[in-house]
Amino acid sequence: MSVLVAVTGWDVAHWVERFQRLLPGRTVVALGGDYDPASIHYAVSWKHPAGSLSELPNLKAIFSLGAGVDHLMNDPHLPDVPVTRVVDPDLTARMSEYVVMHALMVLRQQRRYQKQQAETVWLDDRDQPAAQDVRVGVMGLGVLGRDALDKLQVMGFSVSGWSRSAHLIDGVACFSGEDGLKPFLAQTDILVVLLPLTPDTRGMINAELLKGLAQDGALPKPVLINAGRGGLQNETDILACLEDGSLGEAILDVFETEPLPAASPLWHHPRVVVSPHNAAMSAPDAIGQLVARQIGRMEQGQPLLHLVEMKRGY
Amino acid sequence: MSVLVAVTGWDVAHWVERFQRLLPGRTVVALGGDYDPASIHYAVSWKHPAGSLSELPNLKAIFSLGAGVDHLMNDPHLPDVPVTRVVDPDLTARMSEYVVMHALMVLRQQRRYQKQQAETVWLDDRDQPAAQDVRVGVMGLGVLGRDALDKLQVMGFSVSGWSRSAHLIDGVACFSGEDGLKPFLAQTDILVVLLPLTPDTRGMINAELLKGLAQDGALPKPVLINAGRGGLQNETDILACLEDGSLGEAILDVFETEPLPAASPLWHHPRVVVSPHNAAMSAPDAIGQLVARQIGRMEQGQPLLHLVEMKRGY
Repeated sequence: MSVLVAVTGWDVAHWVERFQRLLPGRTVVALGGDYDPASIHYAVSWKHPAGSLSELPNLKAIFSLGAGVDHLMNDPHLPDVPVTRVVDPDLTARMSEYVVMHALMVLRQQRRYQKQQAETVWLDDRDQPAAQDVRVGVMGLGVLGRDALDKLQVMGFSVSGWSRSAHLIDGVACFSGEDGLKPFLAQTDILVVLLPLTPDTRGMINAELLKGLAQDGALPKPVLINAGRGGLQNETDILACLEDGSLGEAILDVFETEPLPAASPLWHHPRVVVSPHNAAMSAPDAIGQLVARQIGRMEQGQPLLHLVEMKRGY
Repeated sequence: MSVLVAVTGWDVAHWVERFQRLLPGRTVVALGGDYDPASIHYAVSWKHPAGSLSELPNLKAIFSLGAGVDHLMNDPHLPDVPVTRVVDPDLTARMSEYVVMHALMVLRQQRRYQKQQAETVWLDDRDQPAAQDVRVGVMGLGVLGRDALDKLQVMGFSVSGWSRSAHLIDGVACFSGEDGLKPFLAQTDILVVLLPLTPDTRGMINAELLKGLAQDGALPKPVLINAGRGGLQNETDILACLEDGSLGEAILDVFETEPLPAASPLWHHPRVVVSPHNAAMSAPDAIGQLVARQIGRMEQGQPLLHLVEMKRGY
């Protein structure tokens, strides 16, 4: 009854050591190591190579080491076993910190005042709109989207949400489906993207969508904050919308290609903010503990938490 | 029954016009204009010249056009009439926006990631502490301090407060008086100063106080955020503490001399953030409305709101 660690881009040895510590008495092995495939009951994955989990006859479950599971969807040979995501309260709090911080920096024109400091300029023409006059629209109403909406509301912003399926959230105007998208965008000054990446959402943040944002808001121009997945966005379109004046700023934590290539014009565009996909990160130990708890639940016959609907894609 | 507008540094004509509009049927005059001193019943002041309100025999009240009233305390000839401050919900919200934004920028190392973007560096070593491991201590537990504490708590920070007199606030460790200051500082990683400026608090943010901040916290070094009054701080001491390593960053919205002189080393210190005393500003119309409402209350025999205790100084 072994646990297989199948990660790329992360330090495998650290993860093996971590799970060994968290699951005393069990054997923890790394993908490609020396083990009997029939001994593997659980796989923990972060971007495992496609097909690498397909020849494990006794596999019972796959645990994504992140909140996103799009990395699993790219594997056409993914075994037909339950898949769970990580839902970590710390990760949720992190994401809201990022969203609230950037929304406040836009509201309070923080980049303007930083520039003024660099230029030794003391100037305050007090033309900042009130938070309640700035409408933040959150796309994606899962755990992350709802927590961000709560905290944006506490800070005084007017908020609304959009999701594929209908939601009801106290005090939040909720839009849904294809029909709800245009009206949602038309009343949004700051668009916060926290969608999962699925075949339906891939490339969704394109010129057509961005041009649908409110052009009559209290901010000079609408602003995009994408902290979801890079695959959601069309970067050529984002740059075009910044140039043609339909978009004021783009605050991006995720990119079509990560790390963002040095040649990307996003790096040095004066109205683009780049962060290295760190809006929300979990402490590795916290992730390990959550996965170890899931294995414990399974062995005690309890239902797994945070199951992924593979057909829906998240 | 006239209203006298006595302001310096602000556009007097705009304020006269505003009060004329808000107080139809009343005469509104500017200090130094052509009026009978006996006709003045109310004065609205922002930094009026000392002595300029002393020869108004029928003056009934003075209305500060700001939350702070230290500008009135400098007038030894201030008439002995009720004085009120502005307590504007918008101003309170503004101040909390500033405090929460800067606390989050410290927590999330926003300046580091801005620098990395400028240098085309994609690097995330994920060494950011959790908000709950960062202790924010707020000095001053009036309306502004309490609102900031609420919102910092919502964002996940551990919070405490210090005030001259004892306070009880749900979920907040409150320290008070001279005896409480050292223990308060010793458990504070981010010090937020929202104190009123009085003879007791002048120059209080000095080297001795700053060296008392926690040196064992989750941040590399303690951080100062002063959004109260510049007179609270000793800028020579702040710079010395940044240099000797007892202070990590100073985020200052207020200064001993404002505008901050171009020669001040604060402008270009790599660990100082300067903003032009705009952390919390009210819309002039909102201030005007609040003062007009106070005049209405007085004439209807209702008690004035937000009275200043002149002996206490705030």
